[in-house]
Amino acid sequence: MRPRSPNLIAMAPAQREPKVVVLGGGSWGTTVASICARRGPTLQWVRSQETADDINQNHRNSKYLGDEVELAHTLRATTDFSEAAECADVIVMGVPSHGFRNVLTELARELRPWVPVVSLVKGLEQGTNYRMSQIVDEVLPGHPAGILAGPNIAREVAEGYAAAAVLAMPDPHLAAHLGGLFRTKRFRTYTTDDVVGVEMAGALKNVYAIAVGMGYSLGIGENTRAMVMARAVREMSKMGEALGGHRDTFAGLAGMGDLIVTCTSQRSRNRHVGEQLGAGKPIDEIISSMNQVAEGVKASSVIMEFADKCGITMPIAREVDGVVNHGSTVEQAYRGLMVEKPGHEVLGSGF
Amino acid sequence: MRPRSPNLIAMAPAQREPKVVVLGGGSWGTTVASICARRGPTLQWVRSQETADDINQNHRNSKYLGDEVELAHTLRATTDFSEAAECADVIVMGVPSHGFRNVLTELARELRPWVPVVSLVKGLEQGTNYRMSQIVDEVLPGHPAGILAGPNIAREVAEGYAAAAVLAMPDPHLAAHLGGLFRTKRFRTYTTDDVVGVEMAGALKNVYAIAVGMGYSLGIGENTRAMVMARAVREMSKMGEALGGHRDTFAGLAGMGDLIVTCTSQRSRNRHVGEQLGAGKPIDEIISSMNQVAEGVKASSVIMEFADKCGITMPIAREVDGVVNHGSTVEQAYRGLMVEKPGHEVLGSGF
Repeated sequence: MRPRSPNLIAMAPAQREPKVVVLGGGSWGTTVASICARRGPTLQWVRSQETADDINQNHRNSKYLGDEVELAHTLRATTDFSEAAECADVIVMGVPSHGFRNVLTELARELRPWVPVVSLVKGLEQGTNYRMSQIVDEVLPGHPAGILAGPNIAREVAEGYAAAAVLAMPDPHLAAHLGGLFRTKRFRTYTTDDVVGVEMAGALKNVYAIAVGMGYSLGIGENTRAMVMARAVREMSKMGEALGGHRDTFAGLAGMGDLIVTCTSQRSRNRHVGEQLGAGKPIDEIISSMNQVAEGVKASSVIMEFADKCGITMPIAREVDGVVNHGSTVEQAYRGLMVEKPGHEVLGSGF
Repeated sequence: MRPRSPNLIAMAPAQREPKVVVLGGGSWGTTVASICARRGPTLQWVRSQETADDINQNHRNSKYLGDEVELAHTLRATTDFSEAAECADVIVMGVPSHGFRNVLTELARELRPWVPVVSLVKGLEQGTNYRMSQIVDEVLPGHPAGILAGPNIAREVAEGYAAAAVLAMPDPHLAAHLGGLFRTKRFRTYTTDDVVGVEMAGALKNVYAIAVGMGYSLGIGENTRAMVMARAVREMSKMGEALGGHRDTFAGLAGMGDLIVTCTSQRSRNRHVGEQLGAGKPIDEIISSMNQVAEGVKASSVIMEFADKCGITMPIAREVDGVVNHGSTVEQAYRGLMVEKPGHEVLGSGF
């Protein structure tokens, strides 16, 4: 037997690679699953046999990502929930907020202990207003719960454009360790321990995208748009800090980074809602004409509840809530903002 | 004589309104002068008799703002420097960084003591690398020096689109007091005491606009652009804090707000430089083909000096400096960024 190289003696022994299980077959869940599969063993659970076959046989998820996007050939999909749950060393939750708790409840029966749960969801649970990690804490106590979020239009990431996200886990060491599973040459995963901040940024930014969308319909200029976005980051920080998050998070990828994409992209659902409101369409009609959820619509009233509870003023969110839920017009909303007197940029309480 | 109303007894007596003097006849100086003139007595000093006549007789600055923009009728212009200097209660410096010190030196002979000096300049002095307020401290000691900055494309503000800026003065009370002079229904001036932060944000953001411009030429996606901008804010914060600024400033109007406009606007000179570099044009050719200065070109090498002095790494600025000053290609720059391993979002030292 050859003696071991002295360089190797001090290194940690080789460990079994963690198996990542992604739950959900939508565009973003599939994209993340494909990223993970480039790094190590990954299984994706999807409801539809057709989608599973498409992933396994064609390395495609044509339904959500079109025919052009080729997934990692190492990615395997299954419709067998138990198979997925039992083999998971890391769970990635790619199911929408309204199905999140049910999937977790089913998972609880089969998941091994300690397995970390990473949510991909930018929204709150209706009824409870829980962040997704709070649902995990309730349904799967003992499982570390976090979130991966950032300016990530699924289609662009899937097509191989460079992008970055932040992985938030309560324990910074776990975040650093898991971060490597979500990292490729073109997908840059940073880490943080600010789970509250990243989750709140993800839920809140949609409301501000509606505000900017409303602005587009009024023909606002580039200065005005940047003003609303900068003040939106301030508003988000204020609420995020009141709930225990850190303000740096809101100046980062999940905050301003995601806000920029959500406010400027033509593909943004929430921006679209704002533009349609500006065109005078009633909110019910807008919602029913869309085949995907615009989280900002629900979040706008929830934010106002939070703001009242925390005793903070959120003028932009208030105006969006006024238009979405209380019959104000987009013109009234922008006029309402502009009559507020600007104060200290950071310490001021108003717009 | 009628007795005074009891309501009035407790109020401060009426004070003489401060006279604002704006030095410089460019697009932004004129726009700010017109804003101030809507609030109170304002005099603008310009070099050219033609421009002075245009302002006084036509309420236009056709040379810089075109024929469409109508200025406040109360704005008066002069070419008499002594007249302007002597009557000033507040000086607004609308001259470019390369003429800043000379104008101040001339001003020193005639300006009354204590008169605050507000700079409109987003750049550093060549040679000394001074911020504009540092030049004021040197040439006009005893005069409080600050800056007004934000996402303000002059033309849009002049045309009446809503916009916001932040006025930074070393004393928060003075900032609050002066803030009112730069405020109209459509121009929202916030206040802060972080002069260093606002000045550095204004100087640094141009470098990052070049980075984003380079990206456009490579066909980067919306995610990638947002990633670069979010990481740019982090880099700017790092340097700003090392020099005594506050990180909140970089997440605000003068930081991310101005960055958004500078990176996304078609009219941005610095973005244009980045795009031209991406098209393979040498920097000298790009500069000589532009009739206005792109501050980011000069700033890119200065930043690297600052970074070395402060002992911080600034990967995006380093890559821009490489392309602008050391013959790297735009492809190499983006590849250089992408090979860096992402770490903790806030505490990490790299890209």
